[in-house]
Amino acid sequence: MSQASNITIAVDAMGGDHAPSVVIEGALAALEESGGRFSIHLVGQKESVGSELAKHPAPPAGTCTLTHASDIITMDDTPTAALKSKRDSSIAVGLTIHRDGKASAFVSAGNTGAVLSASTLILGRIPGVGRPTIGALIPTTTGKTLLVDAGANVDCRPHHLLEFAVMGSIYASAMLGKPNPSVGLLNIGEEDSKGNDAAREAYTLLASSKLNFTGNVEGRDVLYGAADVVVCDGFVGNILLKFGESIPAFLRMKFTEYASRSLKGKLVTLVARGRLRTVMKELDYQEHGGVPLLGVNGVSIIGHGGSTPKAIKNMILRAEEMVLRNVNAGIRDAIAQYS
Amino acid sequence: MSQASNITIAVDAMGGDHAPSVVIEGALAALEESGGRFSIHLVGQKESVGSELAKHPAPPAGTCTLTHASDIITMDDTPTAALKSKRDSSIAVGLTIHRDGKASAFVSAGNTGAVLSASTLILGRIPGVGRPTIGALIPTTTGKTLLVDAGANVDCRPHHLLEFAVMGSIYASAMLGKPNPSVGLLNIGEEDSKGNDAAREAYTLLASSKLNFTGNVEGRDVLYGAADVVVCDGFVGNILLKFGESIPAFLRMKFTEYASRSLKGKLVTLVARGRLRTVMKELDYQEHGGVPLLGVNGVSIIGHGGSTPKAIKNMILRAEEMVLRNVNAGIRDAIAQYS
Repeated sequence: MSQASNITIAVDAMGGDHAPSVVIEGALAALEESGGRFSIHLVGQKESVGSELAKHPAPPAGTCTLTHASDIITMDDTPTAALKSKRDSSIAVGLTIHRDGKASAFVSAGNTGAVLSASTLILGRIPGVGRPTIGALIPTTTGKTLLVDAGANVDCRPHHLLEFAVMGSIYASAMLGKPNPSVGLLNIGEEDSKGNDAAREAYTLLASSKLNFTGNVEGRDVLYGAADVVVCDGFVGNILLKFGESIPAFLRMKFTEYASRSLKGKLVTLVARGRLRTVMKELDYQEHGGVPLLGVNGVSIIGHGGSTPKAIKNMILRAEEMVLRNVNAGIRDAIAQYS
Repeated sequence: MSQASNITIAVDAMGGDHAPSVVIEGALAALEESGGRFSIHLVGQKESVGSELAKHPAPPAGTCTLTHASDIITMDDTPTAALKSKRDSSIAVGLTIHRDGKASAFVSAGNTGAVLSASTLILGRIPGVGRPTIGALIPTTTGKTLLVDAGANVDCRPHHLLEFAVMGSIYASAMLGKPNPSVGLLNIGEEDSKGNDAAREAYTLLASSKLNFTGNVEGRDVLYGAADVVVCDGFVGNILLKFGESIPAFLRMKFTEYASRSLKGKLVTLVARGRLRTVMKELDYQEHGGVPLLGVNGVSIIGHGGSTPKAIKNMILRAEEMVLRNVNAGIRDAIAQYS
């Protein structure tokens, strides 16, 4: 299908452990899958990106442009220092292209902290948003749940948690097709008296909000889809997500250990491996195409350094979807009601 | 083996979802397994405990006594309120028996909050301990790791995290046979600049302590045995543990879903079920025999309400081990160095 949309996605060609090759591969796959719905604006070192592009069949004319950015922010760089010293980084240049309207979104699998800071700095915050937040989709037994904040904000005040809930609700309603998403507060018990100070105060704020707040959600409830949006600070969110990510490999090792012990073990593991892999993949939220930064004046999607071409492709497709579904207009309206 | 030890373990016969029957079964199994090494002092409503005991062969004379306690603190009771209104609860009476030296330890699968509060109140804290803590053993690819605090303290200051680390180290060294256990701080990145305020300050305290501090441990490192003792506040610890607990059932549901789809799925699931169950069991930290409360003047072990007889048995055996290994003397000495 070929729509006359004007959407261009700026892509950080230098972001990720295997940039630019993996990024180019993912970007071209996204272009192909979209069938001309959007175009891509690659940002990075002209030479290496160009030579990488040359390895692939050329995409349709006008669907893929390249802007040079001389600096590369590495995974080990300290975000704020890197943004100061590397002014011509692919992250800064890509976000500036987006801010200036030459792209509708920005996608990067580079240094998460740098993308976060630069997005807030360059795109600016939506009026009323104190803390932009990242939300991660996690698989549940009933579908998907958005965990917000997934690691952007480590010390949160109760009203920040409310903000995350508001932005997460808009995202879930626009992107997950849940008109009135349920919101749960990640906590250590069901009663409103449970939790640390921030959680207890956030409970009160959430309960008196217009959100579809369904109360506290315990760690054990998350995977059962207890709420469409689960709210927590980024310290807890990041630890929980990374713990969850580690489980597939942990179980794989346990199965392999078992397989090495006997022929029967080997057979069982061989037979079960396919299914195990499928279940594991569902747990791997990197596969789902990066995490959106919510609350900035723009669409910025952040992927893991280890993103595969498929993950890059999914990030780009998700960016397009966020633009098409006007997620930011929704956030702007919703936040205005609370500030 | 029959030693002339004078160890008596007080057991809350009314604690747990299926008390007293499950507790009695577990207690008798512990007695049998110990072969007379210790005796058990049951605490609970004389009538129901007695009639439950009568269903089993009588244990050797003198190995099992019973003290009446008229009140039962239920799982739904608010800990502090229940301790005030139900003064003759099995929890309060059992802990008093322990405090008065008529038992060397106390074990309960009852209301966790009530056992926590009552233990601190009745046994008192070891000098220098600000916050008694609970530690949970979690399985890793290399053995076991003690996560501390597992949910007792939700709002922690940096020196509390140091305290948890000190007590956790003593426990790991005495109970896991690790002479100089490595200690990691649960955090969202490896660098010392990472994390929320409490974590960053705790990092400094831990780094300048005499502990075998190996730095930050991320959520994804926990299951790989990155440290023998992983330190965090009880808010994060509780959420992480409960999340981990939910994974076996989540995976089981995913496999069942798969099985229902085809004959091949059914066969694969049938074949893999046994191994899956074994791996899952390892993840289920309830199986490992409750969690110890560290920092009180005594040995108090808390089990889940849903504890099986096996879990109750393991709790009792662990209590004996904590007594024999003089964990509290170790904690007393170690804490004295920091206060």
